[in-house]
Amino acid sequence: MHPDLHALIQSVQPADAGAMSRARARQAQLTKPAGALGDLEDLGVRLAGVFGCERPHPRGVAVLVAVGDHGVAAGGVSAYPPEVTPAMVANFLAETPAGPGGAAVNAMARMVGARVYVMDAGVNAELPAHPALIRAALRRGTRDLRLEPAMTCEETEALILAGAGLARRAIHDGADLIIPGEMGIGNTTPAAALSARLLEVDAAQVTGRGTGVDDETLARKLAAVREALARTPVTAPLNVLAELGGYEIAAMLGIMLQAAALRRAVVLDGFVEGSAALVGVALAPALRDFLFPAGECAEIGHGAQLAALGLRPMFKLGLRLGEGTGGVLAAPLLLAAAATLREMRTFEEAGVPAG
Amino acid sequence: MHPDLHALIQSVQPADAGAMSRARARQAQLTKPAGALGDLEDLGVRLAGVFGCERPHPRGVAVLVAVGDHGVAAGGVSAYPPEVTPAMVANFLAETPAGPGGAAVNAMARMVGARVYVMDAGVNAELPAHPALIRAALRRGTRDLRLEPAMTCEETEALILAGAGLARRAIHDGADLIIPGEMGIGNTTPAAALSARLLEVDAAQVTGRGTGVDDETLARKLAAVREALARTPVTAPLNVLAELGGYEIAAMLGIMLQAAALRRAVVLDGFVEGSAALVGVALAPALRDFLFPAGECAEIGHGAQLAALGLRPMFKLGLRLGEGTGGVLAAPLLLAAAATLREMRTFEEAGVPAG
Repeated sequence: MHPDLHALIQSVQPADAGAMSRARARQAQLTKPAGALGDLEDLGVRLAGVFGCERPHPRGVAVLVAVGDHGVAAGGVSAYPPEVTPAMVANFLAETPAGPGGAAVNAMARMVGARVYVMDAGVNAELPAHPALIRAALRRGTRDLRLEPAMTCEETEALILAGAGLARRAIHDGADLIIPGEMGIGNTTPAAALSARLLEVDAAQVTGRGTGVDDETLARKLAAVREALARTPVTAPLNVLAELGGYEIAAMLGIMLQAAALRRAVVLDGFVEGSAALVGVALAPALRDFLFPAGECAEIGHGAQLAALGLRPMFKLGLRLGEGTGGVLAAPLLLAAAATLREMRTFEEAGVPAG
Repeated sequence: MHPDLHALIQSVQPADAGAMSRARARQAQLTKPAGALGDLEDLGVRLAGVFGCERPHPRGVAVLVAVGDHGVAAGGVSAYPPEVTPAMVANFLAETPAGPGGAAVNAMARMVGARVYVMDAGVNAELPAHPALIRAALRRGTRDLRLEPAMTCEETEALILAGAGLARRAIHDGADLIIPGEMGIGNTTPAAALSARLLEVDAAQVTGRGTGVDDETLARKLAAVREALARTPVTAPLNVLAELGGYEIAAMLGIMLQAAALRRAVVLDGFVEGSAALVGVALAPALRDFLFPAGECAEIGHGAQLAALGLRPMFKLGLRLGEGTGGVLAAPLLLAAAATLREMRTFEEAGVPAG
């Protein structure tokens, strides 16, 4: 293993239990009936653990969108042609009357004041020069996971470290809530393969309709996942990722590990992000303390991922877009959870009878 | 009926069906798989109907917290003493290191940039002078609904119109998303009575634990609701409100009607707000088009209210605080829904293959 990756994994340490217990004690004194903020109270306590302070004050929000193509897309596993991937990179970066970026994640991010970073993790196209595009691609798309390892181990490690570098940059720019996002035609196929192997469940339980494939395509997709799983018996997390994953998934893993190592909250969007998180907690179990699932997305298998992570999502709006969009929607809920814990007065401060 | 109230009710007209159908057509052309934004797509279309534009652009967010006391609180229906009501008014208005207001709604509102208005709709105390307190109280708390009408018809109409006036002020100040909020020890009891009568269900189906009462208090609360319902057979919405309601509930009704009349979106928080909304749609069915339920709150009966309104909540975080807190959390989701519809590029604009 690359020594930097080894060090990164080692640097993911558990959340601050002392801050969490002080936050719980503070929560009980705030001017509201006990438990009246529901799930927000637990989220606040978890944020206290992440930021090491019973009055956590996360500020900036950043969406880090990693984009990659997939050899398996040639097998007709998506409702969209692979040409959509580079076109969406251009869309993420486009100048529009509303500001930079014409995709859903851009529109939502503007609304919450989140900064969007776009990384070419391995798009199968010559991307036009753009000052905001972060270039980390080593290859134009992965190999076909049905036939051979999608990535080499060296590529996998390099992309993880590239993701980590992007997380450092976003954190340096002021981000405290880090939202890994992804785009890449075909990428729910490797995500399904990774999830089946790491969750030890049948492929059918985690292979869904992605962008909305028809029954025939779904059958092809499931066959592709089964073929890939049958091809390789590996179970070690990094080997699983190299054999069955994708460049943007490796990059998101690096983003998560680095954000956790630097004690920032990771807002977890949908199913593809979830597959990266499964690799992450297998490598560094303490990563879990830093993960905050946004919504349960429409893709089957996301629920199983969240159950394995032991984390509850904040909403269930039926999103199935990716790009980090669910994470952007969840960011204000997390900021609100922190704000109540930080800024509410106690019964004593407010002179309110405590019941 | 007061002629101003009659005019207000008449001025609530349905959402703009043309804008909604243009929004649906635009939604289908945006750079995302069809339906991939899940419930957000429908919310965007509904916002288009509210604002009469297929690219809706709601801006300001305001929480209008109406506060009132309840004669029935003397019957021991809450976990908290009535003295909490005026203490919470002071808390909503307090200067704190973080800014004005030390309650949950203040902390959350600061986070989303929402303005908070606080109205004394009928608190049972001499409230200290405060420049930001809106004074609309006609009486210090309602009468005990177990024994007599909680409010006179004149008081009820006056409070509805006071709420309408506050909504006009907030809209004049720039609010496009209006969040009625409430506080008042004991107010889930009148809300339960209103809901039982208007939904025509047994009191037990809509009488819950409010701030978290124990079994004994819950039994007393249910008995109070039954006693009130048995005392009066009225079914006309304004009479039901006067007999069984509360001053802050009447004020919230006025806020909702006026916001809808001025074609702004009403973000609907929890169970007490829901009881005002039930009166509202009984008076002006088109009000429904302007209501956006935030989360399903923990109070039993909220689900039945939402089912009767035919509206789906955005999340289920187990909140049971009131104050408009759920509405504040939902505001960014609505702003995001509008932002995607307004700011995303179409497949044609972006040159993305449409699959």
